[in-house]
Amino acid sequence: MVDSASFKGRDIISMRDFSREEIDFILDTATGMMPLAEKGSDLLKGRVMAALFFEPSTRTRLSFESSMCRLGGSVIGFAEPKVSSVAKGESLADTIRTVENYSDVITMRHPSEDAAKIAADAASIPVINGGSGPWEHPTQALLDLHTIRTAKGTIDGLTIALAGDLLYGRTVHSLAVALRNYDVRCYFVSPELLRMRQDVIDDIEGNLDYTETEDLRGILPELDIVYATRIQKERFPDPADYERLKDSYLIDEAFLAGAKKDMKLMHPLPRVNEIATGVDATPHALYFKQMRHGIYVRMALLALVLGAL
Amino acid sequence: MVDSASFKGRDIISMRDFSREEIDFILDTATGMMPLAEKGSDLLKGRVMAALFFEPSTRTRLSFESSMCRLGGSVIGFAEPKVSSVAKGESLADTIRTVENYSDVITMRHPSEDAAKIAADAASIPVINGGSGPWEHPTQALLDLHTIRTAKGTIDGLTIALAGDLLYGRTVHSLAVALRNYDVRCYFVSPELLRMRQDVIDDIEGNLDYTETEDLRGILPELDIVYATRIQKERFPDPADYERLKDSYLIDEAFLAGAKKDMKLMHPLPRVNEIATGVDATPHALYFKQMRHGIYVRMALLALVLGAL
Amino acid sequence: MVDSASFKGRDIISMRDFSREEIDFILDTATGMMPLAEKGSDLLKGRVMAALFFEPSTRTRLSFESSMCRLGGSVIGFAEPKVSSVAKGESLADTIRTVENYSDVITMRHPSEDAAKIAADAASIPVINGGSGPWEHPTQALLDLHTIRTAKGTIDGLTIALAGDLLYGRTVHSLAVALRNYDVRCYFVSPELLRMRQDVIDDIEGNLDYTETEDLRGILPELDIVYATRIQKERFPDPADYERLKDSYLIDEAFLAGAKKDMKLMHPLPRVNEIATGVDATPHALYFKQMRHGIYVRMALLALVLGAL
Repeated sequence: MVDSASFKGRDIISMRDFSREEIDFILDTATGMMPLAEKGSDLLKGRVMAALFFEPSTRTRLSFESSMCRLGGSVIGFAEPKVSSVAKGESLADTIRTVENYSDVITMRHPSEDAAKIAADAASIPVINGGSGPWEHPTQALLDLHTIRTAKGTIDGLTIALAGDLLYGRTVHSLAVALRNYDVRCYFVSPELLRMRQDVIDDIEGNLDYTETEDLRGILPELDIVYATRIQKERFPDPADYERLKDSYLIDEAFLAGAKKDMKLMHPLPRVNEIATGVDATPHALYFKQMRHGIYVRMALLALVLGAL
Repeated sequence: MVDSASFKGRDIISMRDFSREEIDFILDTATGMMPLAEKGSDLLKGRVMAALFFEPSTRTRLSFESSMCRLGGSVIGFAEPKVSSVAKGESLADTIRTVENYSDVITMRHPSEDAAKIAADAASIPVINGGSGPWEHPTQALLDLHTIRTAKGTIDGLTIALAGDLLYGRTVHSLAVALRNYDVRCYFVSPELLRMRQDVIDDIEGNLDYTETEDLRGILPELDIVYATRIQKERFPDPADYERLKDSYLIDEAFLAGAKKDMKLMHPLPRVNEIATGVDATPHALYFKQMRHGIYVRMALLALVLGAL
Repeated sequence: MVDSASFKGRDIISMRDFSREEIDFILDTATGMMPLAEKGSDLLKGRVMAALFFEPSTRTRLSFESSMCRLGGSVIGFAEPKVSSVAKGESLADTIRTVENYSDVITMRHPSEDAAKIAADAASIPVINGGSGPWEHPTQALLDLHTIRTAKGTIDGLTIALAGDLLYGRTVHSLAVALRNYDVRCYFVSPELLRMRQDVIDDIEGNLDYTETEDLRGILPELDIVYATRIQKERFPDPADYERLKDSYLIDEAFLAGAKKDMKLMHPLPRVNEIATGVDATPHALYFKQMRHGIYVRMALLALVLGAL
């Protein structure tokens, strides 16, 4: 049986580590946090979260920090490695073994794929992965699921497209792995060059009903959720490929004419050109509300791993 | 009638938006905050302020953060845009619509003149302008007024010189506009090249008794307040102009011999050469105490816009 | 007599300023903080600490911040001077006279030797030196003493080697000066080029039983404590000197075979090559636990100088 005790002291590193029951428990806990996010709480009073951001981030860092504050806890950390001992050549494991003396939980973003695992192995306190290179971003996947469940009332039964850069986009890796636990139909929509990363395919094969395609427009009428991601110019060896492709992944009001009325459009943000600002005012736009669910989910995770529930 | 309810949910963007009654109400509220600034308070417990500083600042950022802490609230944010999603090409409006999910009030400094207005338009929570390019710095003007009123017992009836860079100095723009609500006599003292910005002149014309001059020494005996500002070398196309002028705006003890005994000298700080350190120990020096009023005024503004009073 | 009142409002700048009775009182207070470090406290609720880090630091900054949070206080500040008014040419004294309006205590790291003293002179609130160039790092010395006392039950009677860069290493300067108050036998172990700084020698002469040597291996069997420090390549005019020397200061498991069974190995961290990671799991390794004592000692210092005890 899954209950609060299942999470006390636990690391949150990869969506591969969680069963459906565990994910649902986290989502239920997040829903329970919604009133506390408005009025504040003393649940984590006296507790300290270290936010170690070895890569720039507004969204994830501020979301974790706000979640900790809403629960009455305190935050220490850094927003870039340059101001830390990393600049003096310290190993990640040593940094972690230092910081665990100063805090009760570590949240971390790092450009390396292995960093979150290395940190979790080194630490005796819980480590929450806030993005590990192109590999995973599990708290984003959990907030995405909570957004979907809140908007649609359910995750099961939906048809969901993950679109854009599926090779380097860590949010879609974590989300695809999480979705293998649900009864959904998935489309992986990307340029050939940016198809879904092979180890994700390996991990979902047999558990998730998915189809790969380059054509978002063609499948649009079927979709309940479009999850768009940023396509970065730097990913293309030939800039001409980028110029040719970027428009086929531009979602604007005209494009959305072909969608179901209650199709919801999500994006991990920041967006650059993928979603036209004209879409923001349509009922399809869920991407700004989506951010709010990050607070609920991260409050839930912090309270759970710190054993406060 | 102006009361607390007049401010709940309101943006603080420009001194142009406030009547005399509203300004006086803010100043009275700031005075009421003085004991809380010593002993702390739980007035904003559980509330989160986002401090988004797209430009470096010690004074304004730390003052806002301290004010929020003194009221029992928490702070998230960044001190430079490089650690944020701005580096990934995100628009200001998108950053704001994200951050409003994480916080109850946004304080912001930005190099662009329009930024504070753009942010206020995008946000559903209150935005407080902590400096918008050379345009305005309204919380500085309010703390300046509170400093004057505390030192002199009144603002009405005083003769006040704003001296230095009146073209690019945002603090004097906001202060001049604020002073149009009071019965004061103003001198705008600057080199010809750095005369008061035209849109400020337009906005005060007919409401403020002012005279423009290059000669601070000549009017010094009349003055109750000298408000000096930094003159930046970079403002002068010809460095020789700067070298020639900088000394005529250097305030030292000898210079102050010509002032009234109870003339008070203010400066938004940081100073570089404008005020000699020998002046610090004279009874004229009000510029360090002035900083303290930033706490009272910002505590008042945060409590007012968050509806806590 | 030394009691809490001896510390209220006091600056913590140099170990030269403290008697044995005062050091022992701080260490006793730190021991008393150990339970509060686990469960949190409201001792400094409503108080604000400014952390002004003009040089990068993970350890010292996060340790001070965590200590303040554990006591229920709040933190403002900066982790690098670039985001502050220093970039606009402000003097340190002016920065301090500003920040003292926003906070109740200032903690500071600065590349200049004089900075901590200049700040303490300028400030009317307590200043705690978190590292002043190569000169001193008194809170590190206090946490080192607390670590030793906790591990060994006493400081008196021990034989202690300070090894590595004794010329530029500020932690060993403060520690050597602190140890002159105790009945210990000291070895200063360094390459000829990096011998203990002369003003430290002058200050301990006659009060501390010390021997200078280049040979750590030779004295190892006598030692109760080895305090290793980082040797930086940049310190050597001739890189060949560094290459030749660095291995004689590499501590690994084989090297430790010559040590007493209960010899404890300390290091202010970050380490680079001085201690092999294989040593971490041996009973000699005290350097990660050592970090935890920083919390106890800094909690004690903050509570003492703020008069909360």
